[in-house]
Amino acid sequence: MSRTLHLNAFVMGVGHHEAAWRHPRTAEHHVLDVDHFVRLGQIAERGKLDSIFFADGLAIGPNIRRNTQAIFEPITLLSAIAGGTSKVGLIATASTGYNHPYTLARAFASLEHISGGRAGWNIVTSGNSQEALNFGLDSIPEHAGRYRRAQEFVDVVTKLWDSWDQDAVVLDVESAVFADPDRVRTIDHVGEHFSVRGPLNSPRSPQGRPVLVQAGSSEDGKELAAHHAEVVFTAQRTIAEGRSFYQDLKSRLPKYGRTYSDLQILPGIVPFIGSTEAEAKALEREFTDLISPDYALGQLSAFFNVDLTGLSLDARLPELPPESEIEGHKSRSTLVRQLAAKGDLTIRELIGELGGGRGHRSIAGTPEQIADDLIAWVDADAADGFNIMPPYLPGGLDDFVDQVVPILQARGRFRTDYTESTLRGHYGLAVPTAAESREQAATAV
Amino acid sequence: MSRTLHLNAFVMGVGHHEAAWRHPRTAEHHVLDVDHFVRLGQIAERGKLDSIFFADGLAIGPNIRRNTQAIFEPITLLSAIAGGTSKVGLIATASTGYNHPYTLARAFASLEHISGGRAGWNIVTSGNSQEALNFGLDSIPEHAGRYRRAQEFVDVVTKLWDSWDQDAVVLDVESAVFADPDRVRTIDHVGEHFSVRGPLNSPRSPQGRPVLVQAGSSEDGKELAAHHAEVVFTAQRTIAEGRSFYQDLKSRLPKYGRTYSDLQILPGIVPFIGSTEAEAKALEREFTDLISPDYALGQLSAFFNVDLTGLSLDARLPELPPESEIEGHKSRSTLVRQLAAKGDLTIRELIGELGGGRGHRSIAGTPEQIADDLIAWVDADAADGFNIMPPYLPGGLDDFVDQVVPILQARGRFRTDYTESTLRGHYGLAVPTAAESREQAATAV
Repeated sequence: MSRTLHLNAFVMGVGHHEAAWRHPRTAEHHVLDVDHFVRLGQIAERGKLDSIFFADGLAIGPNIRRNTQAIFEPITLLSAIAGGTSKVGLIATASTGYNHPYTLARAFASLEHISGGRAGWNIVTSGNSQEALNFGLDSIPEHAGRYRRAQEFVDVVTKLWDSWDQDAVVLDVESAVFADPDRVRTIDHVGEHFSVRGPLNSPRSPQGRPVLVQAGSSEDGKELAAHHAEVVFTAQRTIAEGRSFYQDLKSRLPKYGRTYSDLQILPGIVPFIGSTEAEAKALEREFTDLISPDYALGQLSAFFNVDLTGLSLDARLPELPPESEIEGHKSRSTLVRQLAAKGDLTIRELIGELGGGRGHRSIAGTPEQIADDLIAWVDADAADGFNIMPPYLPGGLDDFVDQVVPILQARGRFRTDYTESTLRGHYGLAVPTAAESREQAATAV
Repeated sequence: MSRTLHLNAFVMGVGHHEAAWRHPRTAEHHVLDVDHFVRLGQIAERGKLDSIFFADGLAIGPNIRRNTQAIFEPITLLSAIAGGTSKVGLIATASTGYNHPYTLARAFASLEHISGGRAGWNIVTSGNSQEALNFGLDSIPEHAGRYRRAQEFVDVVTKLWDSWDQDAVVLDVESAVFADPDRVRTIDHVGEHFSVRGPLNSPRSPQGRPVLVQAGSSEDGKELAAHHAEVVFTAQRTIAEGRSFYQDLKSRLPKYGRTYSDLQILPGIVPFIGSTEAEAKALEREFTDLISPDYALGQLSAFFNVDLTGLSLDARLPELPPESEIEGHKSRSTLVRQLAAKGDLTIRELIGELGGGRGHRSIAGTPEQIADDLIAWVDADAADGFNIMPPYLPGGLDDFVDQVVPILQARGRFRTDYTESTLRGHYGLAVPTAAESREQAATAV
């Protein structure tokens, strides 16, 4: 039987393309407008998408002049979007590097209760030196240490979410019992980074706990994903590379007592949709022509954590530090390096390739071509679905929902309506009881 | 000229009275229902109230069996309420003890952008031992140390909110300039507790920065308030006590370069409203009769940080540790101690007195009587307005808004419609430019 797809809308400002805010298809002031983001949630819900997702960081980044992204914090923004939607999942990025597990577990529990069990947490370890400087550090903590902290952090928040049984709130007015204390417990965690007594000050939510999402594709990142993640976002540029990543990651699951369906892999795509292929490609070119080279050079500099901003755009990339020395976004730096080397690209050409999705795969084509492409990846076991990264918003998401989704539905490869009301339900993930979840955690290596 | 009042609705679960969730005027499941809280915001807005406010703590508290409060986290909850309201201010409690200034400044900036400049921050230092145990400490940090950290924390978040000039976002599509880097600056803070480079990753909001709110009435608390707070919530039981607190706090303002109108003082009241005084008093008694004594003993234990749960309800309070040894809620423990001593109350009687508002003043009367009382306090310079703590919700807030507010309006003592769109506007507080705010901070002692 053909597998159905899972679709997440990765929404960011007025679009993923660097030049989106300058293109006539967008209204640049939307980057500051909460109603714009509520509408994006509603468009995703109209398309019956599994979820929407916001990235985040804890610093403004090197290029304030062109940075249209950092305005809203995702957990608060998704709390606002929850009221304007009723089914679509709501995934927020939050850092294990600079939060405390108790406050973060609480914030997500609150989003769970606000949304009726639609929250997801994209786990990031904060690999950028600007962030370190905002939190009292001179430089990024080393990669392996960040992932050790992340493992313990996820362990603690999971214990906190499991500290209330699903039936602990009894609301017995006659006997004046709000919650049964025998079904709420301390966690008494003592570890390398955290000592947390618990319990959490919020009852268990309708889906038990948020869906755990992860996007790092380094060795450490893949192990964290195999251990904990239920949805993985990844940048893969060909079916062959996608298959290889997919097999690699899924094959790591059994050692943590997990099966293939416990983790859904969603490569990113940046769709340029036209009524003909030529029209789609012309649209893509319009966006490429609007890129500001110094913004793109700033972004390349951030990937490699070296200053490239003085270079000629017609040069090739200079000798770069080896991946082993990258303490930041390891897997993204590798991908960009390979891309530049493989195509023998100038910096200008590389920037054009990256403009749409910062390393993610662009597809310019008709709705049919895009649907064919997505189905081909899933049938080749290179994906369980996709992380849709519209180059401009809201139009790019409207077009995907109105033109590509109906084709996937007609072919029986995507839901025609929601059958579940929680994010776990949409992704086909189990809703564990608190006891099952505690047992799972205890038996995993 | 008679002064107009400021009114905040302090909303909590299904009401402030301990027994609210057991009373037939409430629906106990509302404590878990986000729509209930959105409705409370809408009722406050119908009454043209300045703001609504949520308290918070970072632990479940000693009595899980009766604790109906801790479910939603205030910043996320108010982000959800923002979408269902358009004018009323949104005040969230957050701790300086267990947050980091960068992440908290960001969360409030996000609520500011979500709500169009309606956010307020109630600054608490987290004085309870259960909270300490959730954050890796064996006991509560000493009172003075908590306030030193709070001072630095407020200093850092204020610098972060001032790190973007109000006109930094230029959105110039032609020249590809989103923000002018010359109008965004690092803060380079290095202090006893925090090193933070900045700038914040969110532009300055419509009201510049959130309104700062504070409620501790100890010596340290009053100094923090005089230095930073713009609205103060306080528990005062008589006009004489209210006047004394009011004069004390306002007289501390000049040494920080501030004037009387820079800080609004709002004592709490718990209104029981009836069409006759007898009806109102009967309603109050219905609630008192529903109190569960062991919950109330647990709460007294928390005020004094000693275990009173074994005591007979007909006994007087035992010898208690002196206020100087209280590291938690100093001013509240003093108030309860004085109340018990003054009335020579048994523990049962004390619990009855406290049931409505945990030390705050209850008034049972007709709408006219309550309006008279509120105006008398303001005219005696014992208050700038009130922190309305309905004993049950939503009905208790409905009644205040529909029956007491119109009398205040008819007497010219409360706005008949909103004239401003920000929380600063409602409280008559200035909206400083980033430069003015930085200068203010630099000149204050």
